[in-house]
Amino acid sequence: MSAKPIAVSMGDPAGVGLEIAVRAFHARGAHDPVFYLIGDADALARAAARLDVSVQIAVISAPGAARADELCVLHTPLAAPERCGAPDPRHGPAIMAAIAAGVRACASGEAAALVTLPVSKASLYAAGFAFPGQTEFVAHLARDMEYSGPRGPVMMLAARDLKVALVTIHTPLSEAPQALTCDRIVAVGRVLVHALQRDFAIARPRIALAALNPHAGEGGALGREEIDIINPAAALLRAEGHDVSDARPADALFHEEARATYDAVIAMYHDQGLIPIKTLDFWGAVNVTLGLPIVRTSPDHGTGFDIAGQGRARPDSFIAALRMAADMAARRG
Amino acid sequence: MSAKPIAVSMGDPAGVGLEIAVRAFHARGAHDPVFYLIGDADALARAAARLDVSVQIAVISAPGAARADELCVLHTPLAAPERCGAPDPRHGPAIMAAIAAGVRACASGEAAALVTLPVSKASLYAAGFAFPGQTEFVAHLARDMEYSGPRGPVMMLAARDLKVALVTIHTPLSEAPQALTCDRIVAVGRVLVHALQRDFAIARPRIALAALNPHAGEGGALGREEIDIINPAAALLRAEGHDVSDARPADALFHEEARATYDAVIAMYHDQGLIPIKTLDFWGAVNVTLGLPIVRTSPDHGTGFDIAGQGRARPDSFIAALRMAADMAARRG
Repeated sequence: MSAKPIAVSMGDPAGVGLEIAVRAFHARGAHDPVFYLIGDADALARAAARLDVSVQIAVISAPGAARADELCVLHTPLAAPERCGAPDPRHGPAIMAAIAAGVRACASGEAAALVTLPVSKASLYAAGFAFPGQTEFVAHLARDMEYSGPRGPVMMLAARDLKVALVTIHTPLSEAPQALTCDRIVAVGRVLVHALQRDFAIARPRIALAALNPHAGEGGALGREEIDIINPAAALLRAEGHDVSDARPADALFHEEARATYDAVIAMYHDQGLIPIKTLDFWGAVNVTLGLPIVRTSPDHGTGFDIAGQGRARPDSFIAALRMAADMAARRG
Repeated sequence: MSAKPIAVSMGDPAGVGLEIAVRAFHARGAHDPVFYLIGDADALARAAARLDVSVQIAVISAPGAARADELCVLHTPLAAPERCGAPDPRHGPAIMAAIAAGVRACASGEAAALVTLPVSKASLYAAGFAFPGQTEFVAHLARDMEYSGPRGPVMMLAARDLKVALVTIHTPLSEAPQALTCDRIVAVGRVLVHALQRDFAIARPRIALAALNPHAGEGGALGREEIDIINPAAALLRAEGHDVSDARPADALFHEEARATYDAVIAMYHDQGLIPIKTLDFWGAVNVTLGLPIVRTSPDHGTGFDIAGQGRARPDSFIAALRMAADMAARRG
């Protein structure tokens, strides 16, 4: 494990992020990575006060001051106090500043990795945010950093014993088939293989491509994307020396015996990947961004405005995101 | 359990159906339902000979002669001997005759239910079969029988603790969104509620509707089908007194805690329903046809031409289909 701390951006302070950070700190074990929060120290103290757990909060002035025995926070003030469950566009600049500070800390070598807590697009867009989500924002901030591998961002979900990378993500289902291209699948495949080697220590990753259509299109009778797009992409990746399957029927791809045949799946659309991930491991799955110069993970859930401030949010996914980020950073060395 | 036997149509004799029937008979317990096979007696004997299990085969002349201690077969001769793994269009007429005989036996009251073994469309289409699959053929054969409830056929998959009915089935993914209509969802909902009451003894079924788009469309930003089609269908079903949810994000619908909130899901497309079913219970899931005058189930897998005759096919799903058919028939009384 790296000796450097992990930077955690606060996300939307009206959501469950701060209380999850408090709970994860409170539940930490001796081998858990040290992290520090980039966010509003007062909001963090209020989140702790709302929970029935007692933690010691320490304001630090640089990542290097982060310690394991206190919940350390690099103060990034909000323009207005948070109200649980009520996103506020005035929070947008501080939310973005926290993410940017996290990327800078990774770039400078002060932090080992970045874990982002969930944001709401509503607050960010009102503050001038011009990206589909945090992933693209992080990739933009890291765009000028050196990186030796194929560039992402590629979104991967990692559950206990299943990893799935997505070709299309936040696309209406009716637009996903036309958004699928051979080039895009090949690009995702290259990033995925490289990341599994570098960040997950899998020397020769076995990749399974999910079919788009039922029964993998049944030879064209139930759709032609397998023949026209997915299998040609698989052939190109194999020609580069990678271990990649042709399109496999998606419904037969995720049971235990099938999972033993590959290291990761490339799913063609959001729910195709997220249904099996969340069916198998709803609380503990992690969102990992592949193909970035920095290590970035995040919990696999949203802001939880409906339960914010009630102490009901579970920190499992955030804890798993911290541990995965630390492992990945250690492998990058 | 009904005292009448269950009719089993042989399916494609070049596939794994006959060997599965032999194995299921061999593995039967004292409480398993009595069944008889409608198919070629010689092909059945050859299937038994290829396996390392010994069973007593008896040719019977009517369903009423079926017994538990012998593997009974109502002889329906093939026009040519089967070759494992090689579908033959000359088998088409006998395959169809077996299905038709099974429906007749249910209609006459001689059989309690019909379980169909897998067919291949290649063999059937060459013999003049004009239906998308067995389900529609069975519904056609039973079209003039009396039935008090809303008519199907509706395809439902049943795993150990998950039931999913499908709105669209064997449709290319790019065509599934436009195949989705409010009327169709309402029709599926009515059939599903009635079948859960009548055939599964669930007095007031709780139905969860799966969203089509990621994040249930996020208020229209990621697709409008939830707003325009799915939620209006839910409202219509609720107005009829049924317990039906609005569209729920599909990736959060299938983990253990979510499954406790409903009795069945209505999925919008094939893989949305089959991915969680087969992830949770790959070997034991059953395909049930709802809204028919007869009880019909089938194993949730295909002909398995690639492993036919090798003794590797598992009978789990067929055994589960037999038991579910017997339970459903007993509830119909």
